[in-house]
This record gives sequence, C-alpha cells and structure tokens, in this order.
Amino acid sequence: MPSTLDLAVIPGDGIGPEVIAEALKVLRSTGVDVSTTEYPFGATHYLATGRILEQEDLDALAKHDAILLGAVGGDPRDPKLAGGIIERGLLLKLRFAFDHYVNLRPTRIYPSVASPLANPGEVDFVVVREGTEGPYVGNGGIIRRGTPQEIANEVSVNTAFGVERVVKFAFDQAEKRRGKLTLVHKTNVLTNAGQLWQRIVQAEAANHPSVDWDYLHVDAATIFFVTDPARFDVIVTDNLFGDILTDLAAAISGGIGLAASGNINPDGAFPSMFEPVHGSAPDIAGKQLADPTAAILSVSLLLASRGEQEAADRISAAVEADLAARGDARRSTAEIGDAIAAAVAQN
Amino acid sequence: MPSTLDLAVIPGDGIGPEVIAEALKVLRSTGVDVSTTEYPFGATHYLATGRILEQEDLDALAKHDAILLGAVGGDPRDPKLAGGIIERGLLLKLRFAFDHYVNLRPTRIYPSVASPLANPGEVDFVVVREGTEGPYVGNGGIIRRGTPQEIANEVSVNTAFGVERVVKFAFDQAEKRRGKLTLVHKTNVLTNAGQLWQRIVQAEAANHPSVDWDYLHVDAATIFFVTDPARFDVIVTDNLFGDILTDLAAAISGGIGLAASGNINPDGAFPSMFEPVHGSAPDIAGKQLADPTAAILSVSLLLASRGEQEAADRISAAVEADLAARGDARRSTAEIGDAIAAAVAQN
Ligand SMILES: CC(C)[C@H](C(=O)O)[C@@H](O)C(=O)O
Ligand SMILES: CC(C)[C@H](C(=O)O)[C@@H](O)C(=O)O
Repeated sequence: MPSTLDLAVIPGDGIGPEVIAEALKVLRSTGVDVSTTEYPFGATHYLATGRILEQEDLDALAKHDAILLGAVGGDPRDPKLAGGIIERGLLLKLRFAFDHYVNLRPTRIYPSVASPLANPGEVDFVVVREGTEGPYVGNGGIIRRGTPQEIANEVSVNTAFGVERVVKFAFDQAEKRRGKLTLVHKTNVLTNAGQLWQRIVQAEAANHPSVDWDYLHVDAATIFFVTDPARFDVIVTDNLFGDILTDLAAAISGGIGLAASGNINPDGAFPSMFEPVHGSAPDIAGKQLADPTAAILSVSLLLASRGEQEAADRISAAVEADLAARGDARRSTAEIGDAIAAAVAQN
Repeated sequence: MPSTLDLAVIPGDGIGPEVIAEALKVLRSTGVDVSTTEYPFGATHYLATGRILEQEDLDALAKHDAILLGAVGGDPRDPKLAGGIIERGLLLKLRFAFDHYVNLRPTRIYPSVASPLANPGEVDFVVVREGTEGPYVGNGGIIRRGTPQEIANEVSVNTAFGVERVVKFAFDQAEKRRGKLTLVHKTNVLTNAGQLWQRIVQAEAANHPSVDWDYLHVDAATIFFVTDPARFDVIVTDNLFGDILTDLAAAISGGIGLAASGNINPDGAFPSMFEPVHGSAPDIAGKQLADPTAAILSVSLLLASRGEQEAADRISAAVEADLAARGDARRSTAEIGDAIAAAVAQN
C-alpha cells in the first residue's frame, strides 16, 4: 500500500493562491493519496506579522515529503519590501536551507502555443541550474557606503563538491533523455569558476560515454536560444546564468505562464520544493486571470520526484491536450484547472 | 582645415582582416582624411611570436586617435589558446588599459532584415554596458585546486566612481534619444552591487528631469528582449549583464553580422576602440563569406565619436539602404563593402 504523500503548501502572494488552488485540484484528480498542510509565508504575512521564515518554520517544513509553492513577493514599489527581502528571506533561504542544489527547469514549445519566435523548431530541453552556490551565496559587502569612494563587492563561490553533484545529476538526465549535454559558462572571463566547471564536466563525461557534451559561453547561448533552441537537450549551468537562461527559455516557449520548476535535493535529506517560474503578479491577482498551467506542471514534476511517474505523466499529457485545444476564448484560472483535472481523472 | 584622423587598425584573426578591409574601404569613401597604422595582434600573432600585447604595444596604440579592431581569437579547441588567453590578454587588456568604461552597443531591427522574432516591432535601442568593473576585473582565485575541496571564487567589484560615470553617460544618451532609460541588474540577489547601481541611477535621475527611468531584473529583461524589445530606448547595465544582453540583442535583430560596438573612453584620455560584436569565426575565414556590415557600422560609431557626425550618418544611411536592397543572392564580403562604399561616396 503506498503511503500518503505529505505535502507542505505555500500559496504565497498575488496570484499564488489562485494557481495553487488549481494545482491541488489537479493533484487530487490523479487519485494519489495526498495530505496537505498550508503555510502562510510570503510578503502579506511578513507585512502583517514581521516574520518571513524562522528556524521553527524550517523545522516544520522539513517534516513534509515535499513543498509546493505558488509565488511570493508583494508590490515592488513598497519600500518595506525593498532589496529582495522576501525573495532572499523566503525563496532563497529555503533553497539554501534544504540544499536544493538542483534547480530543474524544463522547456518545451508546444505546437499549439504561440512562441514569439517565428520558427522555433521542436524545442524540448531542460536546464539543470545549480541552486546553492555562485553569486547567490550572499558573500558580498559594501565599504564607504554613500561616499564617492564606495565599493560594493559580490563574491561568486564555486566548489568542487557543489559543482560535481549537479554535473552528475545533469549527465544522468542527459542519459535518460537524448544524450546531449551543454555546459554554459563564461570561461573566457570567469576563468577560475569557469575552469572548475569545465574540468568537472570533462571528468564526469568519462563516466557517461553515451552522452555527447559541448560548451557554450553564456552570451553565445542566448543567441542559440532565439536562433536554434531545438539544438539543446540538457543544459547545465551556474546559479546566475541559469536564472537568466530559464527566464529566456520561458519567454521563447510562450511565456512564463507555462514554465514549471523543481528545487530539488536529490539526496532526499530535505524536502524538494516545486514552484512555477512566474512571480506573484500582484497587478492581476484575485481576478482569475492567471494561467495555472505552470503550477500544474510543477505538480507533475513533484509527483515524478516522488516516484509517482504514472500520475506525473497523466498530468503532463492532460496539460498538453488542454494546450492543443485552447482557442481564443479566455478561460478563468479555475476553468483551466477544472478542464485539466477532469482530463486527468478520466485517464 | 580638419586634421588627419590617425587610426590604429587591428585586423586580428579569422574573418577579422576581411571585414576590416571593407570597413576601411567604406571609411575612405567618406572623404574623411585618415591615416592608418596596422598592428598584427591576435591569436595567429601570439602563436607565431609568443606575444599578445606588451606595454610597448599599448604605448604605441595610445598615440592614435582611435582603434579599429576586426576580431581576435583562434581555433577554440587549440589548447595553446585555452582559458580565453587572447580575449583577456588583448581585448579585455585594451578595454582596461585604455579605461573604456562605456561599451556602447546599439541595436536596430531594420525592416528589411529577417528577425528570428515573429513580431519584433520597431526596435531601436542602445545598451550602455559598463566596461571596466563588475565580474570582469579578474579578482578571483582557486584554492585546493584539483582536490575534492577545491574552491573557485570570482569577485565582482563595483565602485561609485565607476558606476557614476557610466550612468551619467547613459542619461546623456537618453536625453539625446527618446528620453527613456532602463537600469538592468539583479538587485534582489546581488544586493550590494545592486543597491549601489540603483542609488546612483536614482541620484543622477534628478539631474535629468526629461528622462523617464525604470528598472528590470536581468532575467525579466531577457523576457522583454523577445516579447517586447520595442519598449527599450537606452539600457544601462553592468559588464557581465551587458555582455549577455548585447549578444541577445544582436540575435533578435538578425544576427551578430550587423552588431557594432564602441569601447569608449569619453574623457578622451585614451583612444576609444571600435569593433564588430561578432568573433573571428575561423570556420568561414578567408572565404569571403563574412558580412562586413558590423565592422562598417563600427566605423560609423568611430566617426561619430570623433565629431565626424555627417560622415557617420552617411555610412549608416548607406548601410540601411543596402540592407533594404538585399535580395536572396549571396554577395561576397568585398561585394557588400563595394556597394556600401559606392553609396557613401555618391551622397
Ligand atoms: C526571485 C529570485 C530570487 C529568483 C532567482 O533569482 O532565483 C527567481 O528569479 C527565480 O528564478 O526563481
Ligand atoms: C570575448 C569576450 C571576452 C567579450 C566579452 O565578454 O566582453 C565578448 O563576448 C564581447 O562581448 O565583446
């Protein structure tokens, strides 16, 4: 008898609660036995209580099998939320505390979805973004603040330990997919971090003879994202380059309304966290205008990570069918969720 | 009587000499009085002589009014050229030694040029990329190399001095253009460098009341580059984000065959350097396959920077007319140069 899947749910701010409602509806329609505990974290909670995420919150979240997150972040002009306080205090804190060293972001261009590219070709790749190192570590500082002699530094930290584990994961993905891996970095300028990444990929390649790998500078990679995105299968890259490339990937595939992601701790020491790539979009919140597809696809990634591959596949198939059937008529957030949930339940 | 324009020319490697030949042809067709001195620097020169760029070379280059560079870099698989030794020892060394703190990269989508975007709109913006700071400073290092405990760091250095001068330049550009400035950074993660940039833009904005400015995270900016590039007028950003965004800009505008750039020292203490954004493309070198348009447009930027606005405008008008008249027939590098030079001479 399969055990109950014990989920922590953080609906968050803005459109987060709306898309999460649909994602949970679809999750339940799979028949997978699931229990959910909702947590209030986000900008609204912070503004009301002064709390972002304390150690006891982390302890509570750590007890669950996985985390489903909608979107966090309030009005960008609110000075009380300046400096990315919610993003860093919540999203990045979770990624670091739960050692989410793989940030997995798949991109597909569905034939039925309009891409901003005139001729995108058959696009189906996944970015394996490192999640716990690089310029995201917060090792920077300012001296002589506010004077003409001010200096602000940011340190990108890259370790053999950290790079090796994500590179291994990426090669495994490539083996399960079309056998192609592209390392993206900027080795001609960031020579220290660059050579570490390059040496580790080269060494790991010996353990994966069936995988062909190549290398692209990050600037060149952005060119191929718009001129020939079909060339990619698995991309492995650092935290910051991965951040940039995955938004670009979402854009070419028809928008961040479809882009799902997993913040994964493959070792299973901590719960992995699944979230749409999009933000909280406060301007359209509460109006049933948000597309819940990215959140629903994030549930599919979540199920796959928990060994529920069959349910995961049913969701992605239902999403694909729903996208193919979409006409010009605008449906509400709930209508899209209802349609996909119904299709999942029927299969 | 106008004085002779005294140019240093570095044709470089691969397609560099071919595109530079056409760029000089067009330059001469303007009637501007110019003398040129050719320098052999590049990968080929390095492999033959062991020299990349010595202090005496810098001293010689410093005596000229400006530098025109084709492209440098050899076979990327040549181990003797690994780690970006030519890029850093030549291109970046020149940018740093000659304090090229403005890296100016205009992007236009010409109606006659096929963009990979289905509906690009009217695109005409310029990226003002900082050229002497950020993660390009080379302040990084490796400890415990080759061990499981290896750590590789890269430090991004940002100073009030460095940010202020490039931000001022960008506001001036915006004033001369459509009065819109976008700061691109990643303030929610790179909080130290990010707040320095943001504070300085905010302060400088007070001196430019006619300029509207806004802010985008670099990841969001890449989305707009493919979904709504027409929204941009002037973008100001750091060295690395500028590197990435300008390759993406080149891609959406129909390829790096058209993208020109100026590495500018606005103070005039050192010669500025103009170069196409594209690389040396060794695979097509010597075959008259390269498009010299980016090099020719770089000459236009060069002339404008030397006060020869009328000649600069004649070149850009001739390029625009040539692009509009291009059919499907492939012309050689020299044929394109001949056509543009003839048009410039006639106007
Ligand atoms: C919100 C922000 C901190 C985050 C990041 O930069 O990782 C976001 O852009 C993402 O990609 O998940
Ligand atoms: C060759 C390389 C060092 C250079 C850079 O990163 O600046 C290039 O990509 C550019 O944009 O001019």
